[in-house]
Amino acid sequence: MTNQFEPRDPDFKARVTQSFAAQAIMQTIGAELVEMAPGRVEILLPYDRKLTQQDGFIHAGVSSTIMDSACGYAAFSLMPADARVLTIEFKINLLAPAAGTRFRAVGRVRKSGRSVFVAESELFAESDGNSRLVAIMSGTLMALYAHG
Amino acid sequence: MTNQFEPRDPDFKARVTQSFAAQAIMQTIGAELVEMAPGRVEILLPYDRKLTQQDGFIHAGVSSTIMDSACGYAAFSLMPADARVLTIEFKINLLAPAAGTRFRAVGRVRKSGRSVFVAESELFAESDGNSRLVAIMSGTLMALYAHG
Amino acid sequence: MTNQFEPRDPDFKARVTQSFAAQAIMQTIGAELVEMAPGRVEILLPYDRKLTQQDGFIHAGVSSTIMDSACGYAAFSLMPADARVLTIEFKINLLAPAAGTRFRAVGRVRKSGRSVFVAESELFAESDGNSRLVAIMSGTLMALYAHG
Amino acid sequence: MTNQFEPRDPDFKARVTQSFAAQAIMQTIGAELVEMAPGRVEILLPYDRKLTQQDGFIHAGVSSTIMDSACGYAAFSLMPADARVLTIEFKINLLAPAAGTRFRAVGRVRKSGRSVFVAESELFAESDGNSRLVAIMSGTLMALYAHG
Repeated sequence: MTNQFEPRDPDFKARVTQSFAAQAIMQTIGAELVEMAPGRVEILLPYDRKLTQQDGFIHAGVSSTIMDSACGYAAFSLMPADARVLTIEFKINLLAPAAGTRFRAVGRVRKSGRSVFVAESELFAESDGNSRLVAIMSGTLMALYAHG
Repeated sequence: MTNQFEPRDPDFKARVTQSFAAQAIMQTIGAELVEMAPGRVEILLPYDRKLTQQDGFIHAGVSSTIMDSACGYAAFSLMPADARVLTIEFKINLLAPAAGTRFRAVGRVRKSGRSVFVAESELFAESDGNSRLVAIMSGTLMALYAHG
Repeated sequence: MTNQFEPRDPDFKARVTQSFAAQAIMQTIGAELVEMAPGRVEILLPYDRKLTQQDGFIHAGVSSTIMDSACGYAAFSLMPADARVLTIEFKINLLAPAAGTRFRAVGRVRKSGRSVFVAESELFAESDGNSRLVAIMSGTLMALYAHG
Repeated sequence: MTNQFEPRDPDFKARVTQSFAAQAIMQTIGAELVEMAPGRVEILLPYDRKLTQQDGFIHAGVSSTIMDSACGYAAFSLMPADARVLTIEFKINLLAPAAGTRFRAVGRVRKSGRSVFVAESELFAESDGNSRLVAIMSGTLMALYAHG
């Protein structure tokens, strides 16, 4: 279950940080990239009333937003320096309402190819020192190269 | 392929409208509920720079947000008046970058049960009078009843 | 909703037929390829007690087998003559038990790229002249080229 | 990551064994239930030429068959004695061709509710003492009760 990945780009942290900073949606919702290792990324999102669905929980689409980026940057961390990353699909299972003071999406790579990556992420709702798994995601990411 | 559903609640439009209005995330991103029929719902989202990923396209999580709500309200439109709706899972396939001036999510029910609903949604990117399919989603929704 | 695809290989029918015939599993379960058009394929499976789960219905994995091949060959029909096809993921929603005398999987392409294809399939249970939708699938297929 | 589940039915092993034995498809493909614990199940499938797709690998639908049953019986092991189990959806990501002498599907529960269960399974291809992850699945299972 441990991920033992060798990054193809030694500067992957700078590359991931820069790309994350370019995702305007992350500032809009207040999400932060808090951890990074080869093939593994964590994103943190504080609860905000403006992100909720009709019952006051974080909307599944918002959970998807940070979980998809957690998958995407876990994959991107393993890509060569000249690649761009593109999500081609993901699926999310919602295990419990996203209720808490903040939310942690943990993404990790399960398959690292030249073009095709598969990653999973888990979403934890944190509250008063407790952490509870509330969603799981699996997704496929593509590495795109300018030279085709 | 046509949906011929009988709403169990004749006032379904008021109920759907009210629930959609209670989704704070919809105001945050600027999405509007624009069409409603039994088992079918359309949501419109204008392009906004603040909703983008690193390449300037609408983030897949934002696309998911309106597509999930399109599925959810398509299902909710067929539920009895005393039911709440909960997404339990969805999967999205991204067919093309979400580039356009506005985005239309069209949700429709494929299975309508007492508790379990299955719905699909399609996302169209609109630009200069053109409309292009950019994503498809399938999801499972549950009807929850206070009396269990 | 209509698929208007131009096959890149005019001999696609021979190519699809030959590949389908090479799927030993199809003979094992008794499935037949019955319709083919560019981007669209139908597979028929008679009910057989030996394909069932614990309640006597066709097992979801068997439904997946013909629905995945329906997606795969719908995509393969649009690929150039030198491509191989590979499923990279699919998701199935089971709308009703697979009860009937035979089962028809209808696959059609939603996105046709150079490498990446997205297809959907529907499964119909047929019985006494009636046809009932019992499952839906969406999947991603890759075209692989020997020259990379 | 460890599953610590209390079975609601102390006789869950007999119940799971009996239901698995009633899945005719398992005999047809040669699959065996080899491990069982509360919320965790393993199924083993020897390679058989009759289960293959066009390139001689195990067909993705066959992989799905044992992975779905691994998810289903992992969930079923936690259900009360009077419940039936039904798959409502699953998604599979194929990480590598299913090439090997035998295949091991390991299913484990991620969420255990009264009605709704979420489980994951992994598929390992074994060959000459080596084991390689070739597919991952997530799925939703329902517990059905005769009394509604």
